This record gives sequence, structure tokens and C-alpha cells, in this order.
Amino acid sequence: MEPARLSLNQITLNSLALPEAVAACERHEIGSIALWRDKIAGVGLGRAAELVRSAGLHVSSVCRGGMFTDPAVDVREDNRRAVEEAATLEADCLVLVCGPALDHDLPAARERVRDGIADLLPHARAAGVKLAVEPLHPMMISRRSVVNTLRQALDLSDAFDAEVGVIVDAYHVWWDPELDAQIARAGERILGYHVSDWLPETADLLLDRGMMGDGLIDLPRMSRLVAEAGYTGPVEVEILSSHWWAQDPDDVARTVRKRFEEFV
Amino acid sequence: MEPARLSLNQITLNSLALPEAVAACERHEIGSIALWRDKIAGVGLGRAAELVRSAGLHVSSVCRGGMFTDPAVDVREDNRRAVEEAATLEADCLVLVCGPALDHDLPAARERVRDGIADLLPHARAAGVKLAVEPLHPMMISRRSVVNTLRQALDLSDAFDAEVGVIVDAYHVWWDPELDAQIARAGERILGYHVSDWLPETADLLLDRGMMGDGLIDLPRMSRLVAEAGYTGPVEVEILSSHWWAQDPDDVARTVRKRFEEFV
Repeated sequence: MEPARLSLNQITLNSLALPEAVAACERHEIGSIALWRDKIAGVGLGRAAELVRSAGLHVSSVCRGGMFTDPAVDVREDNRRAVEEAATLEADCLVLVCGPALDHDLPAARERVRDGIADLLPHARAAGVKLAVEPLHPMMISRRSVVNTLRQALDLSDAFDAEVGVIVDAYHVWWDPELDAQIARAGERILGYHVSDWLPETADLLLDRGMMGDGLIDLPRMSRLVAEAGYTGPVEVEILSSHWWAQDPDDVARTVRKRFEEFV
Repeated sequence: MEPARLSLNQITLNSLALPEAVAACERHEIGSIALWRDKIAGVGLGRAAELVRSAGLHVSSVCRGGMFTDPAVDVREDNRRAVEEAATLEADCLVLVCGPALDHDLPAARERVRDGIADLLPHARAAGVKLAVEPLHPMMISRRSVVNTLRQALDLSDAFDAEVGVIVDAYHVWWDPELDAQIARAGERILGYHVSDWLPETADLLLDRGMMGDGLIDLPRMSRLVAEAGYTGPVEVEILSSHWWAQDPDDVARTVRKRFEEFV
């Protein structure tokens, strides 16, 4: 894919603080970035906004709100802060990671997600921030999210008159037998498209995503489906990987750019 | 669930050869067993049949045929042998594990599965053996199976006029937002019901299944759904787990029986 559409999801260079990640984007001529909230907190919201603005960076998303099932955090308050951060940073959307499952009652957890979004939506609307539900791979149900398929995310979106959008993350949805139909159904509700790759011998449920080209996902095919659905925005490279996190960030950024052009 | 319905899937006591597994069933008053083909090969088919028959054991399934995408084995010949084994052992069904994904063309892999079943079906019919497609968790797509949801398995079954059945394995399908509807749809196509548990901090994609009661799956609810769909046969406890494999097999068998009564 043309490099103009590349967005660096900050977690791909997880060892860098926000100023260094911004500098890496400048060095490698990457025009968009996705910011994580812990990194924003590391420098403060005002400074974060100043940094991306003065670098001329577009913010494709803020990661992440959600966690509606977690009793350990004041979810409501925290999600409102996340909306404010996304608004201040003029991000395309706030990504919602909707889970995890904490007890035996999965249907109830999914209802808490719907209720949590309903509670947050007016606040997001007022702030001009789009909410994007990201379905996460079923193997992440007990660590991250009880929303696990694109169909489910879109059913949730339907419940909000399509006012809530979705993220299509190749890693999370590539296995889905209904992928083509559900991406087409998503249409302009697609608020973001994330890429990485599925390694044949995946060794860890969270931190073993592959670099594009190293795995089994037919990314050009998925890119075509997403384009046919109408999405023309930034494409985030989001690689949670202990392997890549241990490499030199500049080497990783170079590889990301190269593989993005070649394999996405 | 009442212990009369318990079937020991042999892999739960993976360190035991077939004669020892049969003896463990006798010792722990377990009336059914599911046999793995490598263990059958370990004693020979004739001896395996003799052993289960003289112990009065019912064979709930033979694990497994399938692997239609694997170029490394002579799949066609191997699957025909698997059918013969299931017939000789008078097993309720032959479990089909339908994968894995080996390259970028996932739709083609899924077509190979359909073609492979079409090729095997007349042979199974002639031998009086029921074929049961087991959808496997999406995280197992590159190691085991490109059939990953119950809906997909049932669509496949539809393609064979419902002559091919399915296995409902709690571990593989519990996360599915469509679970209730698809189990109801399966109805009398359910040829087996397998239980174990999903550990909240699952550490391995293949070998970290939990003992019933140690995880997040609402097994009584799933048992009810399966019963409402009409299934009344044996319920296999199938736990692939390096933790449990390292324990004393008699302790594991005792725990299986106890947890089966309490949590399934």
C-alpha cells in the first residue's frame, strides 16, 4: 500500500516514550500516528498535542477506552477522560476494547459493554469524537475483550443506529469465515484498519504478532475488501510483539515502512 | 452431570498407553472412552478392539481424521484407515479436525476440507461410521483447523445434506456470540459433546486447557443447550494440558469424575 496511508501505532515501538515515537515518525516520513493513553499520560495531554501538531502528524486513533467489565477501575470516569484526550488530539476515533470476561456470565458481560457504550456515547458526541469498537480475537476474551467478531461489533453498532463504528484489525478477524460479508456490511462504519500478521507457530496469546509478510494473513485481499467497503483513511501498523520490541526502533520503523509497501 | 454419561478422552491421561487407559476407566468406573489413533496404533487395532470390548467400554469417538490440507501425509489413505478403525471399534463417530491453514489462501484451504469430506463420505457411509466435524478455536487455525465456528461446521454439514455431523467442544466454542442459536440449529447433528475449561490466564495455545471448574466457561449452561438440542450421548472430558499430564493419572481420573459431577 502507498506509504502515505501508513500510520504508526505507537505500541509497535513500545520502548519509546511519546516524544521519541513522534521523532521516529518524522525521521521515517510517517505521516500518522496512533497514540496510547499511558504514553500520553507520560508527557501530559497538552504536551502530547503540541508534539504531534508541531510535527504535523495526523492522529489516526487513541488507544483505548472501553474495559467496561473491569471492576478495578472507575471505568465511567476513565472513558470520559479518554474521549477528552481523543478530542484534544483531533484523533479520527477513540478505540474501544470491550472486556474482558471476568466470571462465568458472558452474556451479562456483553450487556455491560452495551450499557457502557450507551453511557459514553452522548459524551463522545458532544466532544465530536467517534467511538470505534474493535473486535478482538476470541483468544483474548479473558484478558481483553468480550467482543470477538466483526458481526458482533456491527450488531452492537446497529443497537446505536450505526452511530458507533468499528475497527477492522487484520490480526483479530482474518480467521473469520464471515469476513468478506461482514466487512462489506460495515461499509462507512469502518473507522480504522489495522495490520500485522499471524505467525504460523504463534507462541503467545498477546505478544507474538508478526510483521506483515511473516505470517499467513492475505493482507492485500483484506485491504481490497476494506477499500471496497469505502474506507480510505490511515492504516495502522500495530504489532504487539516481544520479539520486535527487543529490536532497535529505527530498524523496526524501516521494516514497517518497507513491509507496508510490499505486503499490505 | 451424572457420571454414567462421562467418557474419558484418552488424551486427558496422555502418558498412558491404551491398555493402561482402559484399566484406568475400569478402576474409576468410567463407562466410555475416546481413543486416539496413535494409541490405537501402539497396540494394534485388533488388540485395541479386544481391550475395550472385554472391559465393556463404549467408544464415544475415534480421534481423529481430517487434516485435509496437509501435504505431508497421504490424507486420503489415512482417513480411510481412520474410518476402518472407528468401524472396528464401534465408535459413535470419527472426529474430523479440518486443517490447518498452511498458506495465504484460506478460502482454498476451506474448499480442500469440503472436497476431502466429500471424498471420504461414501467410504464412511459404507462402513457405517458417522463423520463429525469439530470446529476448533480460531487460535488453532495455523496448527490444526480452518473450521473455526459451529456456524461454519453446520454450513459444511448442510452442503452434505446434514449427513455429516458436528462435535460441540466447550473449549472451542464457548466464546461464540452465536453459540445458543448454532447449538439449537445443530440439533440431532450433534454427535459428541466435549468439556474442559478456559483458564483466565491461558498460557499456551494448545496445551493449557483447564479442568472443569477452574476456568470461565459456564458448563452447566452449555450442557443445557446441548441437551435442549437433543443430545443424550456420552460427554467426553478432553484436557490437553502440560499441567495435568504431569500429574498422577489416577489423581487426574478422580478429579475428572468429581468435577464432572459438580461442574458439568
